[in-house]
Parts: sequence; C-alpha cells; structure tokens
Amino acid sequence: MDYSALIHNVYQQCQREVNEGSVASYIPELAKVDGSQFGICLATVDGKEYHVGDASTKFSIQSIVKVFVLAMVYQKVDEALWARVGVEPSGGAFNSLALLEFEQGIPRNPFINAGALVLTDILISQWQDPKQAALAFIQKLAHEPSIAFNEAVARSEATHGYRNGASVALMKSFGNIHNDFFSVLDVYFHLCSVEMTCRELARAFLVFSHSGRDIKTKQNILSARQVKRINALMQVCGFYDESGDFAFRVGLPGKSGVGGGMVAVYPGKFSVVVWSPPLNAKGNSVRGLSVLEKITTQLGDSIF
Amino acid sequence: MDYSALIHNVYQQCQREVNEGSVASYIPELAKVDGSQFGICLATVDGKEYHVGDASTKFSIQSIVKVFVLAMVYQKVDEALWARVGVEPSGGAFNSLALLEFEQGIPRNPFINAGALVLTDILISQWQDPKQAALAFIQKLAHEPSIAFNEAVARSEATHGYRNGASVALMKSFGNIHNDFFSVLDVYFHLCSVEMTCRELARAFLVFSHSGRDIKTKQNILSARQVKRINALMQVCGFYDESGDFAFRVGLPGKSGVGGGMVAVYPGKFSVVVWSPPLNAKGNSVRGLSVLEKITTQLGDSIF
Amino acid sequence: MDYSALIHNVYQQCQREVNEGSVASYIPELAKVDGSQFGICLATVDGKEYHVGDASTKFSIQSIVKVFVLAMVYQKVDEALWARVGVEPSGGAFNSLALLEFEQGIPRNPFINAGALVLTDILISQWQDPKQAALAFIQKLAHEPSIAFNEAVARSEATHGYRNGASVALMKSFGNIHNDFFSVLDVYFHLCSVEMTCRELARAFLVFSHSGRDIKTKQNILSARQVKRINALMQVCGFYDESGDFAFRVGLPGKSGVGGGMVAVYPGKFSVVVWSPPLNAKGNSVRGLSVLEKITTQLGDSIF
Amino acid sequence: MDYSALIHNVYQQCQREVNEGSVASYIPELAKVDGSQFGICLATVDGKEYHVGDASTKFSIQSIVKVFVLAMVYQKVDEALWARVGVEPSGGAFNSLALLEFEQGIPRNPFINAGALVLTDILISQWQDPKQAALAFIQKLAHEPSIAFNEAVARSEATHGYRNGASVALMKSFGNIHNDFFSVLDVYFHLCSVEMTCRELARAFLVFSHSGRDIKTKQNILSARQVKRINALMQVCGFYDESGDFAFRVGLPGKSGVGGGMVAVYPGKFSVVVWSPPLNAKGNSVRGLSVLEKITTQLGDSIF
Repeated sequence: MDYSALIHNVYQQCQREVNEGSVASYIPELAKVDGSQFGICLATVDGKEYHVGDASTKFSIQSIVKVFVLAMVYQKVDEALWARVGVEPSGGAFNSLALLEFEQGIPRNPFINAGALVLTDILISQWQDPKQAALAFIQKLAHEPSIAFNEAVARSEATHGYRNGASVALMKSFGNIHNDFFSVLDVYFHLCSVEMTCRELARAFLVFSHSGRDIKTKQNILSARQVKRINALMQVCGFYDESGDFAFRVGLPGKSGVGGGMVAVYPGKFSVVVWSPPLNAKGNSVRGLSVLEKITTQLGDSIF
Repeated sequence: MDYSALIHNVYQQCQREVNEGSVASYIPELAKVDGSQFGICLATVDGKEYHVGDASTKFSIQSIVKVFVLAMVYQKVDEALWARVGVEPSGGAFNSLALLEFEQGIPRNPFINAGALVLTDILISQWQDPKQAALAFIQKLAHEPSIAFNEAVARSEATHGYRNGASVALMKSFGNIHNDFFSVLDVYFHLCSVEMTCRELARAFLVFSHSGRDIKTKQNILSARQVKRINALMQVCGFYDESGDFAFRVGLPGKSGVGGGMVAVYPGKFSVVVWSPPLNAKGNSVRGLSVLEKITTQLGDSIF
Repeated sequence: MDYSALIHNVYQQCQREVNEGSVASYIPELAKVDGSQFGICLATVDGKEYHVGDASTKFSIQSIVKVFVLAMVYQKVDEALWARVGVEPSGGAFNSLALLEFEQGIPRNPFINAGALVLTDILISQWQDPKQAALAFIQKLAHEPSIAFNEAVARSEATHGYRNGASVALMKSFGNIHNDFFSVLDVYFHLCSVEMTCRELARAFLVFSHSGRDIKTKQNILSARQVKRINALMQVCGFYDESGDFAFRVGLPGKSGVGGGMVAVYPGKFSVVVWSPPLNAKGNSVRGLSVLEKITTQLGDSIF
Repeated sequence: MDYSALIHNVYQQCQREVNEGSVASYIPELAKVDGSQFGICLATVDGKEYHVGDASTKFSIQSIVKVFVLAMVYQKVDEALWARVGVEPSGGAFNSLALLEFEQGIPRNPFINAGALVLTDILISQWQDPKQAALAFIQKLAHEPSIAFNEAVARSEATHGYRNGASVALMKSFGNIHNDFFSVLDVYFHLCSVEMTCRELARAFLVFSHSGRDIKTKQNILSARQVKRINALMQVCGFYDESGDFAFRVGLPGKSGVGGGMVAVYPGKFSVVVWSPPLNAKGNSVRGLSVLEKITTQLGDSIF
C-alpha cells in the first residue's frame, strides 16, 4: 500500500472539495487560529511516517489529551479505575448533567468532560506534580521534549469553563471528586491546552496501534489488554454523539478535539492524524472526518 | 372563631397521634436538634396572637427565608425580576439540574434552590452589605432586632453544599449569575441559617396576609399586587414536589424548611407557623403538614 | 360590586386591545372556527348571571371537560382515586412521556392528558355506558339537556391522537389502564368534543364555587372536601406549564381548553367563563387570560 | 489456530464456573425454556464449522433478528434508510421514550426497539408479504428452509408488548410510522419469535464476516460498504447499555437476544454464536458474554 500517495491524494481532494465548518469560537485563543491550516500525518507500526501540509505546526489538541490521561491513569490504577468512571456511551449532549445526576456522580465514560475531570482528579491524587507528570508522559510517547501547555489557552478556558465547574461540583456532592474544586479545574484546563503537531500526535498514538509497546524503545507502556480496552472505548465513545457516525463512516477507533485535530488508530497497522480547524455543528473537524473516511474507503480496509 | 382553642386542640391531637419522620441529618448542626420540640403560633391581621408549645424557641428557618428574600428583591426590582427566574412549578426533584440545563440557566421559580441562588445574586448586586440588609429586612418584618444568622450552620452548609455549587456554576455558564461563585454560595448559606421562633415568623408573615402592609406601623412594604403574586407562587411552588399535596390537603399558600418549620398564610385573615423537626421523605415537617391540614379542616375554611 | 359593568368594560377593552394568538389548527374541525367570536359569562352563587358577547354560542370545551370527569369519578371512588393518579404539577410539556415512564405509569395529575386518560379508564370501568353517563352528569350540572358530543371533532381527534395513544399504551404496560386501548381513546376523544356555551359552562362550574352543592336543586353533588381538593388541583395544575403564571396573574383556580374556552372559580362567590378561540404558544386563550386578569385586578380581589 | 480445542475448552470452563443469571420471564413461553441448555458454534469464512453442546437445538433468537431485518431493509433502500433511523448509541434504557420524544420520533439506532419497529414499518411498505419475505431472507442466509416463526411466542409478546405499542404510537404521531398500528406490532412480534440453532445462526452471520458475500453461493447479498456499516453499528449499539462493556471485554461487533443467544463477528475471519438462556440484569446471556470474552482473550486477538 502506497500510504504516501494515499494521503497526498486525499489531502488535495479535501482541500478542493471540503470547505464547510467554522473555527471554534468559545474562547478567543482558539478563535484566532488560521482556519486554512491543514495537515495530515500517518505513522506505521514498522516505523515509517508519511505527512503532507501543515503537519509540523503546533495546535491545541484539546480533548485528544483525554486519551493520554486515560492511558496514564489506567496503567497506574488498572481496573480499579472503573469504580469511578463507566465504559458506556452517554447518548450525547442531550442529557449531560441530567445523566450525571441520575447516575449519582459516576460519569458514563472517560471521554465525556465529566469523565476526564474524574481522571484529572485521580491524576492529582496519584502524582506529586500532576501537570508536569502528564507533560512528561506525553513527551515520552511522542519522543519530543518540546511539548508544552499554552498558558493563555488554559487561562481562557478557566474564564469560560463554568459548565465544567458544574460537573465538578455535582460529582463532589456525590463524593466522586476527592481534590479541591479549583485545582481539578486548573489541571484539567492545562491538560486541554497542550500543543502538538500532527507528526508528534501520530507518533504518540502509535502505542495504541502496537499493543502498548513503544516502537522505538520496545518498552511496554501499557498491557495489550489495556490497549484493547482503550481502543474499544475510543470506538464506542470517542466522538460524543457522533461516535456511531464515525464508526459507521471511518470504521476505526479515534478521538477528536475542538482545536480541529482528529486521530484514528488501526490496531496492528498505523495511527493517523488530521488537523483542520473548521468544525461541524457537533464540534468535530469537517475535513478531519472527511479525510479519515476517504482513507479507509480508498484502502478498502477498516477494522469492520 | 376561637383560634386559641383550635390550636391547643390540634397541638394535643398531633402530639398524641403524629410521631413519624426523622430530623434532617445532612448537616451535623441540624442533626443535633431535639426532635420532640413542637410549637404553633397563629397571628391574625387584627393583631391577635395565639401560641402553644415551643413557640418561643429559635430554630433554623432554612428555606422559609426564600420568601423573605423574594419579597425584598421583588420590591426592589419589581417585574424585571421575572427575566431571571420563572413562575412555574418545577415538577420536582426528578429533573433539577436537567431542567436548569434544558431551560438555559433560568430556574423555574424562586423557591427551588437554583431560583433562590439567583435571588441571592440579585441581592448581592443591589445591596452594599447583602447579609446585613437581609437581616435588617427580616428584623423589621418581625419587629425583633435579635434575629441573626447561625454561623456554625452556615459553615456546615458550605462544606456540604456542592450540589448548590453545581447550580451556581451551571447558571454562571449561562450568564444568569453575575457575582463571584463563592460569594453567592456564602450569602445563600448564611440566609438559610437564620434562626427565628414560631412567634417571630408568624408576625413577619402577616405582611403576606395583609396585602403588603405592616399591621403595626401601617407602612406599605409590598404592593397588593406583589403580595398576591408571592402568595400565588407559594401556593403553586412552595413545597417542591409536594406543592400539589399541600394545596390539596391544606388549601392555603405556604412554605416549609428542613429545620422543621412550616408557614401558611390566609390572605385577609391570619398567618400560622408550626415547628416540629421530624421530616417526611420529601423534607417537609410531618407534624407541620398534619397541624395545618387539621386547622383548615376544623375551621371548615380555606381559600378554595 | 357591579359585575355587569365589570364584564362589559373588560369585554370592550379586550376587544380593542388584545388581538394576538391563533386558532388551534391541529385538527380541521377546530381550525374552521371563526376566531373573532368572543363571549363572557359570570354566574354568582346567589343565582345571578351576567354575560356579554357570544356567550350563548356553543364551542368545543376540550380539556375543560377534564374537571367534570374528575368530579364524576372522584364522587364515585373517592380517595381511592389517588392510587392511580397524582396531585402534583408536572413541570410541563418538557417531559411528558419521560416523566410517565420514570414514574411507572402513574400520571402526575388528573389534568395532564395521561391523567385524564386514567380518569376515562375508570369511567369505563364504573359506568355501563360511560359516554352517556358523562353527558348526563354535565347536563345535570348545567341544567341543560341539549349538551352533546360533536362526532366530527371526536373522529378528527382519533385520526391525530397518536400521542395520546402512546400514553395509553405506556400506562397499559404498567397496568394502569384496565380497558381496551381503542375504547379508552374513543371515550376520551368523545369527552373532549363536548360543546357548551359560556353560560352553560358558568352554571355548571358554580358547583365548584358553592362547596359542591347545586344552587338550584340544593342537592349535594360533591362533598365540601372534594370541592376544596378539585379547586386546589385546578390552581396548581390547571394550565399545564402556565399554571404558575395563571395563579400569579389571575389568582383564582381555573381550567382552559384548546377550543378557546377558559373557566375560573372564586370559591364562595362566582364562576366565570371566557371564550375566544385565538391561543397563545402554550395553548391558552389569549383574551381569556387577559379578561380574567383584568377582572381580578379591577375587583381588587382574588383568593390570594 | 485450533478453533475446535478453543471452543471445547471455553465450553467446559464456563459450564463449570459460570452459573449466574436467570431465564427471561416476561413472557411464559420464554420462561419455560430449560436454562441448563448451552451451545457454541464458530464458523469460519473458509467454510469450516466448529460446535459443542446444544448447538443444534432451536431457540428464540429475539433481538438478534434485528440484524437480519436491518440487512434486508438496507440492501433494499440503501442510504435513504438513515432519514428514518439514526446511527448513534442511545445512552441506554434510562431515556428510551424520553429520547424518542425529544428527537421527534427518529430512533437513535436500528437496534433499540423503536429503531427495529421503524425497520419493520419499512419492511411492510416494501414487501408484499413481509413476514414470509423476512423468513425467506433468513432461510437463504442460513441455507436452511426449516427456519420458522414460533406463533405462541409471537402471540405472547403481543399480550405483553404495550411498551412497544407506546413507541409505535409516539412515532406515528411524528409521522415516522406509515403503516397500521397493530400491523407493525404483529410483524415485529413475529420477527422476534424466529427460532434458529447456534449452527444456523453462525452460518447466517458469516455474510457479515465476509464483506457481504455468501461463502457457498458466492452471491453478493450486501455491499462491502453496507457490511462495514452494519458491523460498526453492532459494535457501537448492539448491546443497549452494555455496548461499551461488550466492546471493552470482547472487542468484536455483536448482538444479543433475551432468548439467551449471542452472536459476534470477526470481519475476515469468523462468526461465533453462543446460546445459554440465563441472563444478567441488562438482559444479556451471562455465559454468552463470558464465552466470547474468553475466546478473544485466549486467541489474543480482537479487532482492537
């Protein structure tokens, strides 16, 4: 399979044909981003890397970070994690706080905001310096020490993040947040502000295509069982109320962020990252979705 | 009508026959209260006052304070108030945060917690020293300068009040809370901690039986229109998801608090207060409900 | 009090100033009604009757019939009724079927459609010929033997009534409907199709202003306790998700129908009926609401 | 891979160790089934078949039939199908009718009952004799002409199926059911009553492991795109509110029925069916779940 031709081909087709969507505007720092930027990177488990467009430009990975936080916390506390967060799809935005209230403070899964806030709470309980620890974990996966938070984005989230505050307060009332209200929000907003390039993300996600083993160092970062479960969760819950549609059209586990990034994983084969800031109404990158659908369609191959 | 005989009669009957319920235990300060205490006071618009039992003992009025806060804010901002809080029953605990989310941060009415938190927010915006102003307003209605907050109760609420915190945060995300997160909670928890006796409460509530006019000073504190509307709201929403049952059995507007207090108002005739700490499953005083039902039944008279 | 001058005055004022709303269009038979028709009738407990405009024209009383059905079933099965239907406001359209599902087939109150369908089911169980029995009961209250169903309206409802069908089916799955699916719907649609004039309705509702006693025959049709409770329920739940607003503005118990009729009851004094077909977004007559608000405002008197 | 040893091994282990759950009891016909029956069949895309235990006994496939109905309707109307039913997980039982009401009669996906009722409605619109057509389609996939409905089960469902009736009526009120109320229910209850053996089901599901092509006749029954999408939907929504857990533990798309049957599909490799009537609280076969988890764990292979 000529992956290079494939991604160049899809890149040009999407640049020509796919021009809907609008850049996230709920915080000024994201609204300022140039929406025409567009990059793709595909990394294979045998160490090859193919990229096109703005694949070396840093962008705000936002919710994609939840996969790293899940990996980090899961390898630390293992199956005990599931006492505090579920593994089922939430049925979408329709009933976010309602569902959390009904289910007594246990979020449906680690990829809705409430779930990621619980992961953050565990991170704070388990690590001395949770922000640095998270950064170090991501840097190690990506083999790239320059990866950092964007403080302006983190501050901006804090000013607009009272919906997340409502989740933290509600879960605290049910005893499912153990640390201080503002600490949990602060660490969470920092995590969401991490900036990476398509190439760095593709490399970092290879661990999920390679049964938990770093392809360079051969170190086992996660067990094969843990990776299987993380991939299953991405498949079933990675795109909020577009998870079914993503599975349906792309046929691979994946995760998106409102910064316009989108990642997919083909277990045993590759990881692929797209970045294009204009989003659809559900908050997923329009070109990201289109690129990934075209890739699996043109490959004639998906996990299904 | 011999009100004195009536309340003594009902008092004895309830002391003998009505012994269910349990004292509120969600905060230690309320759990410590001696549950056998029991008082009734009925005050008429022509200035008579009848009382029996522990009618001169201070207790935590809790949610009953919402009526005072509503009166205070309503006479200040008049009908502009209803842009920030509704006038409809909420359908009960079933969907508290869910409904607030669905209706974009506008609470259903001033007597659910979210509504009272919005009133508190307006209080903070409109008065220099909102806590003292509220206390002064209540002292004036009751003609009793000793009325005060219980700081231990206020602190205790603050430690257990994260569900209220969730409401504040959610409303803040919709722009319906203008002041600081913790300030709103702090003032609110103080307001709920006010302590009064049955006699003080009955006197203070006479303003709602007397078209807004203080029966002693003859001062107009609220307009007749405002009082009619406050009474209508008490009738329709004063007892959360037992409002229908209260209207049905008692047939008067009223309000209850988890401290075991319960107030009812007969426009043009009297106000009546019962205090008995043991609560039913919905958080209303068991004897309070029974006393008020017996009073209107034995009077053969209610507003309906 | 010169009730005659009052209603003529309010009539002229509303005809001039209140011209919003649109006639119900969900079934063709209601859509055909001339929206400019407008009548008022006020009947007092001492037997006087005041009317103005189209007060002698028959119209479709629709949901107003629920009060008659409640009265009829309540006097038959008394407090046993409340095992099958609640007495609390529902919190409105927001969660109709959701709430019914959550509360396992027990409707919140007798005035939401699901509640009236349970009343209808009891009617079928308790009377040989439920349609004729209901008609006879209403004819007796109004002292008017010509009152009848409109078969075209009943048929039209049947064709468009699948939302009511969903409630019946759901309650049947919980065991709270005992009779045949289509029978319950058929009787219910007939009941809603009853046609009466403002004058007939005002006379029929006097029973609720007069402690359950017919002012002409002196017969006790309902007990004083039952009437108090029916009035309380009208106050708290009579206008769906505008019940609070109606209590707030009008200050009397009442009930409305999508045919443009609206009834209010002042216990001990009078009943009053307005008919004007144009409805607001919540399905209540625009002029009906305005007329009743003006009447209690100009009287300077309500139950609150 | 020695599939024969694998399934014998897992069979014996589960028979020894997994003994929780209880047979479905909501209809008498299912309650009568001998709960100790237990069979497994695994069929590979190269035509091999491995089975153990009661793999040749007919059982009620119940909701598993939804996959066949989806395949049949999808190959007929293709992507037009998605105007009438969604592709997202529903978030579980919590909000079944609520969600259907909120989303105006469009069911979340084809595997919740409401979705399968829409498929049934399309079946009735598209085929002259929908029951026979469905049976013929299933017989063709399984290469087995004896497959039939169980009329006693279908009748029994009809007597207890008013919750499905509520969905049909609600969707009819939104215009998303085009055929007669009772016809849709009748066909649906017949479809759920189909009886098959593990071996027949495994053969019939091979079409989903083989890109839509019949492994014997080489006929293309579904397109590769359609199969990919059906598998993705099974993965994301096949187990109601245990879909995440199934993906997480088993790592294959699948579907279960309350008759105790459970199917999983490994695209490109095999289909596997377990039958064991005792169910967990969510209505999924306890041994079924355990067998499938053990199979992918011992294979060390899943799609993730």
